[in-house]
Amino acid sequence: MTFMPDFKNAIDPAKLDKLAEVAVKVGLRLQKGQDLVMTAPVNALPLARLITKHAYMAGAGLVTTFFSDEEMALARFAFASDDSFDKAAGWLYEGMAKAYSDNAARLAISGDNPMLLSEQDPTKVARANKAMSLAYKPALEKIAGFDINWNIVSYPNPSWAKQMFPDLPEEEAVKTLADAIFAASRVDVADPVAAWTGHNAELAKRSAWLNDHRFSALQYSGPGTDLTLGLADGHEWFGGESTAKNGITCNPNIPTEEVFTTPHAMRVEGTVSSTKPLSHQGTLIDNIQVRFEGGRIVEAKASKGEAVLNKVLDTDEGARRLGEVALVPHSSPISQSGLLFYNTLFDENAASHIALGQCYSKCFLDGASLSKEQIAAQGGNSSLIHIDWMIGSDKIDIDGIKPDGSRVPVMRGGEWA
Amino acid sequence: MTFMPDFKNAIDPAKLDKLAEVAVKVGLRLQKGQDLVMTAPVNALPLARLITKHAYMAGAGLVTTFFSDEEMALARFAFASDDSFDKAAGWLYEGMAKAYSDNAARLAISGDNPMLLSEQDPTKVARANKAMSLAYKPALEKIAGFDINWNIVSYPNPSWAKQMFPDLPEEEAVKTLADAIFAASRVDVADPVAAWTGHNAELAKRSAWLNDHRFSALQYSGPGTDLTLGLADGHEWFGGESTAKNGITCNPNIPTEEVFTTPHAMRVEGTVSSTKPLSHQGTLIDNIQVRFEGGRIVEAKASKGEAVLNKVLDTDEGARRLGEVALVPHSSPISQSGLLFYNTLFDENAASHIALGQCYSKCFLDGASLSKEQIAAQGGNSSLIHIDWMIGSDKIDIDGIKPDGSRVPVMRGGEWA
Ligand SMILES: [Zn+2]
Ligand SMILES: [Zn+2]
Ligand SMILES: [Zn+2]
Ligand SMILES: [Zn+2]
Repeated sequence: MTFMPDFKNAIDPAKLDKLAEVAVKVGLRLQKGQDLVMTAPVNALPLARLITKHAYMAGAGLVTTFFSDEEMALARFAFASDDSFDKAAGWLYEGMAKAYSDNAARLAISGDNPMLLSEQDPTKVARANKAMSLAYKPALEKIAGFDINWNIVSYPNPSWAKQMFPDLPEEEAVKTLADAIFAASRVDVADPVAAWTGHNAELAKRSAWLNDHRFSALQYSGPGTDLTLGLADGHEWFGGESTAKNGITCNPNIPTEEVFTTPHAMRVEGTVSSTKPLSHQGTLIDNIQVRFEGGRIVEAKASKGEAVLNKVLDTDEGARRLGEVALVPHSSPISQSGLLFYNTLFDENAASHIALGQCYSKCFLDGASLSKEQIAAQGGNSSLIHIDWMIGSDKIDIDGIKPDGSRVPVMRGGEWA
Repeated sequence: MTFMPDFKNAIDPAKLDKLAEVAVKVGLRLQKGQDLVMTAPVNALPLARLITKHAYMAGAGLVTTFFSDEEMALARFAFASDDSFDKAAGWLYEGMAKAYSDNAARLAISGDNPMLLSEQDPTKVARANKAMSLAYKPALEKIAGFDINWNIVSYPNPSWAKQMFPDLPEEEAVKTLADAIFAASRVDVADPVAAWTGHNAELAKRSAWLNDHRFSALQYSGPGTDLTLGLADGHEWFGGESTAKNGITCNPNIPTEEVFTTPHAMRVEGTVSSTKPLSHQGTLIDNIQVRFEGGRIVEAKASKGEAVLNKVLDTDEGARRLGEVALVPHSSPISQSGLLFYNTLFDENAASHIALGQCYSKCFLDGASLSKEQIAAQGGNSSLIHIDWMIGSDKIDIDGIKPDGSRVPVMRGGEWA
């Protein structure tokens, strides 16, 4: 029997408390009287307790927390009968959807081992994921549709830390990951809430500048990259805090460094190379190079994981086209850490990136009122997948191209121009 | 920041595994394909994990576990705004009710500190309990109505252990409580499942004997006790395993030592004295002596907690009348341990007892088909409370009185006659 080790020497209690405060005040901007639904790995109990405290201090109505446990998840794969893998707790997710309809906020603590199920039967994993996705849909739609304020923060779970730092003793691995999370989440400063106000202002300034220029395309050049990436008609750039349909302005992701919008699914031409490895469902895909014609990937190579990459591209028609383009300066704290987190929440904020697959309907002018058909007509891609991969580095220059063909420098050597 | 200590030296892993096995195979008798909804204090994670394993080994469909945390509960009382205390997660309990309607089984791990909220504002505690009771009602009705198989087992939570053994170091307190739970739950033998089969047969034999005799009353005599306790018309004795409406025969309580039925709310006469202290919401009530006239308590004394006792009796009209009578031999393992657990699941199995308040509709011949009015007409009591207190010891004799006035010895010196 293993039990939870005590990592209080590895995880600075004062910084963990600040992370909880930032999650409640900046991430959720929880309102007086608002209920909160939280999910967390059971190992993240210390952070969940602190978030509960800060939520009640902020005037929360009721905080309801659901803990998951990696050992229980593995017990299912080890011992359950075959029928189990098509089941999901629909009654629970319907209940959560009801809570969100009643304006409960949503907080997820991430930190599970990204490789947890990598050695399990992939068919069973896929079936369990599918059953879960279907059951979760009513609740996820409220979150993805931004009906309510929500937030994800991370906790340095030992299983995740060991995945990132396999050669370190467990406690040192946890300490290293904890410090990386605190730095990326901007809680290692005297006044983290003020730091976030400044950071949000910076991201808003960048988004506004890009929106003012109304570029029709971005031109990327650098080693192995010569890409013209058309932007969707009526695209809108976003970054940092954002206002949910319930009127509350929150920071859904902590950390966040990106400004992002929707590319045009039919107007991407040329070649682009990845600048960091992509961790996809337990496989590392490295040194990706793809060629686009008419928005479609017509050739894809990788030094590692090429077969998996090509399987991903074959998921559906939209998997070969882009759904997101995001700009992140090379000087961002996550990029400077040089770490691969195996966790999109961090890794997509380490460098400028693009995503294969589904676009965000929000990233259009007046996006909330557009039909699926209108979004597609304006160049918004659709797919079952959304996979971010990094194409930014200190060697990449980006120009904005205006409809009249004139050019404006956007990034030089990976930094805002 | 405190975190969970590792008690694996205090809690025998092999016995804990047997407790999990007994909970699944004997307590729930979980069926192939049946889902399970489990609740547990987060400190009971090791037992929850083992129960999950045994549930999947028994063919469970899906196991869904909800963890509660004492520190989070206290954070609410310490920091929440006043409005919070009228709130409860109705959407969650409605979901659970739906799961039970779909035949999910229910397992509760008990083990919370019985005194957790004893220093909090009693008005807030009462408001939170009331909101919770109202919200929980749809789910509780399925459990109390025995629609599905359910079970409670216990885990030696440190906060509970320290309440029981304030003078022992924490690890020793946990070890002592763990061993007491294992003994009472009959898992400290080579084949616990077989031990439970034997124990259930013994309780069934006692119930059948009592049912065959169709006593109209029981006569108690001993120090400070001279009581004639009328039994309800058409009462039926139960003990040990029992069949839920979904057809599954389970053991709702682990441990269980009692055979019990419904007294007649109008036909109790004489005086009875408690033989063990009663722990009621943080107050100890000791040396209770009450006098009944026409089924009603007309005089109540206690050497300690008399004011609280009288407040309890004033809850409603039914609080002064009896809803349960239960027989437990003085030689039962829990009685022999000599421990006060501050937990009804254990303490009511330490001695013959009676309960003030609500009766069990099940404890009648054909009870499931009786209306509330019929139950009342047959002598079944109703009240908002149900409080068990101990009146058995090795000095108590009990006779059964037949309708013709003839007497049959039931217990002599606290043992089956
Ligand atoms: Zn992105
Ligand atoms: Zn993305
Ligand atoms: Zn009882
Ligand atoms: Zn009782």
